[in-house]
Order: sequence, then C-alpha cells, then structure tokens
Amino acid sequence: MGINFSNFLNTSKDKNTKINDFQDLDHLDGVGVSTISANLYGDNRDDLVMFYFRDGANHASVYTQSKIRSENIKWNTSHKSKKIYSLIVNTRNANALTGNKGYQSLEKIAEIVSEKLTEKQKSDDNNPDNINVSQIMFGCTGTIGEPYPFEKIRENLYRLIDNVKYTQNKYVWIKAALGIMTTDTKPKLAMEECYIGKSKIKIYGIAKGSGMIHPNMATTLGYIFTDANLSNEILKKILKKNIETTFNAISCDGDTSTNDMVSIFSTGRTAHTKISNLSDPKLKDFDSALNSVLLNLAKRIVSDGEGSSKLVTINILNCQTEEEAKKIGFSIANSPLVKTAIAGEDPNWGRILMAVGKAGIDINLPKLQLKFGEYKIFQNGKLHEKYDEKIIAEYMKNETLEITVNISTGTKNFTTYTMDLTKKYIEINADYRS
Amino acid sequence: MGINFSNFLNTSKDKNTKINDFQDLDHLDGVGVSTISANLYGDNRDDLVMFYFRDGANHASVYTQSKIRSENIKWNTSHKSKKIYSLIVNTRNANALTGNKGYQSLEKIAEIVSEKLTEKQKSDDNNPDNINVSQIMFGCTGTIGEPYPFEKIRENLYRLIDNVKYTQNKYVWIKAALGIMTTDTKPKLAMEECYIGKSKIKIYGIAKGSGMIHPNMATTLGYIFTDANLSNEILKKILKKNIETTFNAISCDGDTSTNDMVSIFSTGRTAHTKISNLSDPKLKDFDSALNSVLLNLAKRIVSDGEGSSKLVTINILNCQTEEEAKKIGFSIANSPLVKTAIAGEDPNWGRILMAVGKAGIDINLPKLQLKFGEYKIFQNGKLHEKYDEKIIAEYMKNETLEITVNISTGTKNFTTYTMDLTKKYIEINADYRS
Repeated sequence: MGINFSNFLNTSKDKNTKINDFQDLDHLDGVGVSTISANLYGDNRDDLVMFYFRDGANHASVYTQSKIRSENIKWNTSHKSKKIYSLIVNTRNANALTGNKGYQSLEKIAEIVSEKLTEKQKSDDNNPDNINVSQIMFGCTGTIGEPYPFEKIRENLYRLIDNVKYTQNKYVWIKAALGIMTTDTKPKLAMEECYIGKSKIKIYGIAKGSGMIHPNMATTLGYIFTDANLSNEILKKILKKNIETTFNAISCDGDTSTNDMVSIFSTGRTAHTKISNLSDPKLKDFDSALNSVLLNLAKRIVSDGEGSSKLVTINILNCQTEEEAKKIGFSIANSPLVKTAIAGEDPNWGRILMAVGKAGIDINLPKLQLKFGEYKIFQNGKLHEKYDEKIIAEYMKNETLEITVNISTGTKNFTTYTMDLTKKYIEINADYRS
Repeated sequence: MGINFSNFLNTSKDKNTKINDFQDLDHLDGVGVSTISANLYGDNRDDLVMFYFRDGANHASVYTQSKIRSENIKWNTSHKSKKIYSLIVNTRNANALTGNKGYQSLEKIAEIVSEKLTEKQKSDDNNPDNINVSQIMFGCTGTIGEPYPFEKIRENLYRLIDNVKYTQNKYVWIKAALGIMTTDTKPKLAMEECYIGKSKIKIYGIAKGSGMIHPNMATTLGYIFTDANLSNEILKKILKKNIETTFNAISCDGDTSTNDMVSIFSTGRTAHTKISNLSDPKLKDFDSALNSVLLNLAKRIVSDGEGSSKLVTINILNCQTEEEAKKIGFSIANSPLVKTAIAGEDPNWGRILMAVGKAGIDINLPKLQLKFGEYKIFQNGKLHEKYDEKIIAEYMKNETLEITVNISTGTKNFTTYTMDLTKKYIEINADYRS
C-alpha cells in the first residue's frame, strides 16, 4: 500500500476547507489512542488501532443492514455493556464469513485485552475499574472470507496497549485514521466544537470508506468521539437521526458490506447541564454539530470513493414523500450510465432522466425541472430554450457537481452524494486481491 | 462505427453453437425486410430498418417499465390496431424526451409510410389493403434527448420502401440485425422450428442490446417473427410468460431505458389447427421454441453487453418464493464489486455472499451453499474443506461462468444472466457522445 504519512499533513482548522484537506483534531479528554502495525498487509503499514476509554465511555452504534454480518458485528451486538472501555479496529481482514473460528478469535482477543487493561488500570490509577470482555468492541474491514489473522493480531496486543497515548494531537488522529484504511487514498477526519448549555464540547470523528459505499453504509467505518456526557439512549437516538441524511445518503457503487458500523463514544469528561431527552433545546447545537461531523466524513468518503474523480451532490426536490425523493436520488446515484457520463465529463442529461424514470415513481414530465449547478437543462417537457451544450460541457469539468431534479409533485426533498465511475474503479476492484 | 458486414458471416444452423456464432435464418413467409442507411451516424452505416407485413400481422409487445417513455413507445401504445403492416426501426436517436415534436415526427412518418404502402399494395396485389397510420409501429434506440432526425429519415422513406425484399436469406436478416445496433459489437439473431399440430412453424428473432440492460429489458429491442397463425390475445400471453425468464432475467448494468420493447409478429402464412387458449397442449412445442429463441437472444445481449468479456449464469435455488430468488440473483448480477472481481478473474467468493446478504432476504448461513461451476465453495457456514483457490482461479478464466447459490429455505428457483464489468464499459460509456 505504501502510505506516505507526510502527504496528509496539509490540515486546517477551517471546516469550510476543501474536501481534500481536513481539520486539525487535537486533544479530547478521556480517550487514549494507539496505532501500530501487526504487519497484516505484509508491508509494515499501520493496521491495528485501539481506542481506550480509561473511565469507560457511553456509546451507541448503527450497523450494516446486510443479512450476512461479520463476526465482529455479531460480537458487538451480542455483548451489551453500559460502558465500553476499548474499541479495537483492524484492517486487511473483515472477519466476515469466517465462521465460529472468526468469532472465537475475537473472544480470545477480548479476554487478553480486558485482562491487560484491568492490570494497566491497577498500575496507573488509584481507583481502577475491572474491565470485562463485553466492554471491548471491534471494528474489522478488509477482504471477506479469508481466515482471520488471529495469531498476528494476538502477538501484537501488548504492544498495542503499551503504545496508548492519553494526550492526542493532530498526528495521533491522522495516524489512527490512516491505520483503519483499506483502499482509501486519504485518511478521513472531521471535528466540530459546540455548546451544551454553557459548556464547550468537542466532537471528533474519523472514518474509512472506499468501495461498497451505499445507504446503510457499506464498508464504512465511522467513529465519533465526544467529551460530552450523554446517556446511551440519547446517543442512540441522536446517532440514528443524523445517520439518515449523512452516511445513509451516500453511495459509491450501490454495494453494502457485511461490516459497516458507525459508533459514537461519549467520555463524559466535560461537565454540562444534564440532558434527559432528544428534544431538549440545549441539545440543538450538539445535534447540528454532530450532523456536520457525520456529513463532513460522509462526503470525504464519497469524494475518495474507489477511482472517484468527482463528488456529485444530487438534490431531489418536491416529491410526495421523502422515501420517493430518496428512491429517485439513489436511482441516479447508482446508475452506471450516469456515473460513466460524469466520468467522461459528458453533459448527457438524458441519462439522468432515464434514471429518474426507472426509479418507479410516477413522473409528471411537463412539471419536471432538471438543473446542473445553476444551469436549467430541462423544463416544460423539453430541453430548456437557453440550453447550450458548450457551457454545460464546461460545467461538467468541475471537481464537484450538483444535479437538481425538481419533481414538483409534493414538498419533500432528499439529497444524496455520489461519485463518478472511472476505469480506476475497475482497476482497483478487479485487482484487489491479486 | 465502421461495422464490417463480412465479420458476421460465420453462421450456423446448429442452435447449440457458441454464443458468438449464430444460426442461419432464411425465408419466413409474409415478412418483407428493408435495411438502408439514412446516414444518421454520418458514416453511412445502415440505421433504418423496415419490416413490412403485406397481409398484416397479428402482434403483441412488451414495453419498458420506466416512468419516462420514449415517443415511439407512446405512439405504439396509443394506437391499437388489430393488424400491423409495418415496423420501422431507427438507431442513433431514441426519440425520448423530445417532446411533442418527436411524437409529431412519427405521426408524419406514419402518414407517409401508410400512404405509400397502400399505393404499393395497389400496384403489387389484386386484393390490396388500405393501410392506416395506426398500423405502423416504431422502434427507436440511441441517444436520449437529442432532437429526432425527422428530415433525414423522411427523405429516405421512399427508398426504404422500394428496397423491401419479400424473400429473405441469412444476409437479409443479418443486415437487418446490424441495422438496429447501437454500441453492440455483434448482430443478434436466433431461430427455432417447431410444430403446431402437424404444421411446421418457424420462429425467427433479431435483437439489439448493449448498455442499460436490466430486468424490464433496458435499451433492448427484440423482434420475433413467426409464420404461425395466432391471435393477438394468445401472442400477448405467450410473450409475457416467456419474457420473464429470458429478457427480464438478464442484466448488464442495472439501468433501464425509456425505449425497451420486445414484439412478436405472426403472419399467419402457415395453416395449422386453430389455437384458442394458452393452455392448449398443441401450443406446447411453440411455447418452448419461443422460449428458446428469446433466451438465445437474451444471452447474446448479455454476452455482448458493453465491454463484456464473460457471460455469467447465476442460479439461485430453493428460496421461499421466486421473487426472493430473483432479488438475490439480481443483487449479485448488478453488484459492481462482483462484476469487477469476475472481470479480474478473481475467485472473490466473499463478494458473492456480500451481494446475497444485501438483497434483504433472510439468510440461514449454515444452510447456504455456494458453487462456482461444479466446485463447492461455501457450505455449513464456512469455506468448503476442499476449496483450492488455484483450481477456482483457473475456473474463473473461462468465458462462461456459472454461479449457484442454494439458499435452502424453500423450493423456488430463478436464473439470471449477467456479464462482467470491465474498463471497456467505462470507455464506451464515458465517450459515448464525444
């Protein structure tokens, strides 16, 4: 893979920064981070990341909708603990379709890690917690169906724990974001600061994507960390709500993996007024900041989708239901003919309307309006009179494109994000394992 | 485009011939065929084809399920005539999203053609029919949304009619099959002979495909001709029934066009015992012969899908309903990650199961069985003990592949056909208009 760490140091505190840059994450209280190489790829790149919450963290997760789930997701969903002490993420191997053996590997790792962390707490703290296996969570990503590299991971666990850093700076976060990547070409990080009552709260996030990105998150891992003090119930509700318009609104190739997960961990290290329900107005700023972090990460995932050269925002306006708007949006976002036309910078608007038509939602063509950016393309049942292919062809050369379809049958909207389909995608995916 | 006619003369009467060869169609009574160039592509390739049924033909058609339909499909579905006298097919322009102007062009063409054909009947026959506009049908394929090239077509109509051949040989049919192609690389023809009672009946078919091939037929045109004497009602039922497991079982890229149509025309020139309902046992041989012709054409379409290098048959066995089997089959057939793995000859069976999982049908993993050809890959919840990646990698090099997933939750099966996803697909589709 040969990832060059120094390529990714062009960071910024400005959240309006170009999608290819990213913001500086610094210290977030209550989180320890460790990133090492267990040599899973055979080239010594970092591939094993640990997040250690020394006082435990409240948490919530959303998982893939696939009917075939990886062993780590089975593990996470069958161990319900109020507090989580560690999240361990490995790349290279998805631990999916690995049967009982894959599951038992996680069990053994959880045993070793919980025991060692309990020891560590005893030597570091005055008031140590006893950590048990159900307080360890796993994220796995990589090839499906290959035996889980248990031995390689096991023999590196002590080193992983010894390496935990309690104070982070941007390099610690970038290293962690790099350590969870598969075919991603860039690490993905985002942050927001917000208020709950009078307390300033941080929300940090890292993610990996590339390939198999579709609603329900595909081989996406997203991990959000906050120093707020929110209950598991609130975290669950606020994550579910915001995932719909962010991670579940993106699509690279319409595929969905066995391994998708997005989790939020709340360390509770910053004191603030107690929040007891989702509709509390004091939660509003946090809610919108969380949405920003998730959307920022989601867009980074799309814009770094395998072989992607363009980020495409698709607005579907004024449908009868949001469900209809979503169906039409994903019909466009997942159409190989639309995606290849965009790759070729061809203003082939007919393919957009082909994809609108095949979504199965009743269309009143004379009322439908299509725009590329600010340019009107189609309205009143025909090509717009001022349509000038040269101008639109010029527009298609942009790295970010916006397609807006006004269906004009109702009042509901949905926005999806996708990428183009290039030869590079085929190269990456036809040669993935060879 | 530069299609070299002589490349396609390697034909055969053997229906078990390789998919890249095709069978010899010869004379079919009651059909006249004319193929000319109206120079729609600007390179003098044939692009305008007429089928003329001098005594009229009984007929039935199935059309795209898209909510946005081309003008010719609107024309065909709003003119219901018991007998059709001519089908005119043009390539290069889909006449879709062309508004009233596109529709009016067809109206004018139908006027000119019906008038001229009526004249022709008067000069050729003792017992001439009066042909009216509603007895003219249209097939259109090509770019969506560009103005319909009415003038170019209009000025060639007399030549098209003058050129009609009443006696066909294989060259006439190949020329017609070539004349309806867009980005297809090969003409598609198939034939069967069968019996209704004691009468020998011919079923001939031509088709075009490439790109946008999905259930509900995508930019597929399929035209079937028979000398049987069957009513419109029987034709409709038998076509609908057989389309489900043939044209509606194939997928190249999951896209669906505004223009798809498959029609059957019955000239009634061969006398046979009267058939008054679909369940008449005397129709059985015709039924299965029609299925063969349709399946043969459908497979040719897939194996010539844009950029295709492999034809993949996907058998989904023992589901609770056929609908479930179909969903799982198309989830595999339309998965870009599966299709690119196949292009790369990578036995990445994990992606097949990823696609099974994302179909949304409940899976009992320990009961699921996956085979590539005759090789068992996955069963009892894990990789088969005799799985040998080298052998399977060797199998993946075949030009035709068979993937079988036994879901083992019921008794219903469905077979779909698809192709791999190659760089060539991107090339063709990113550069289509430029």
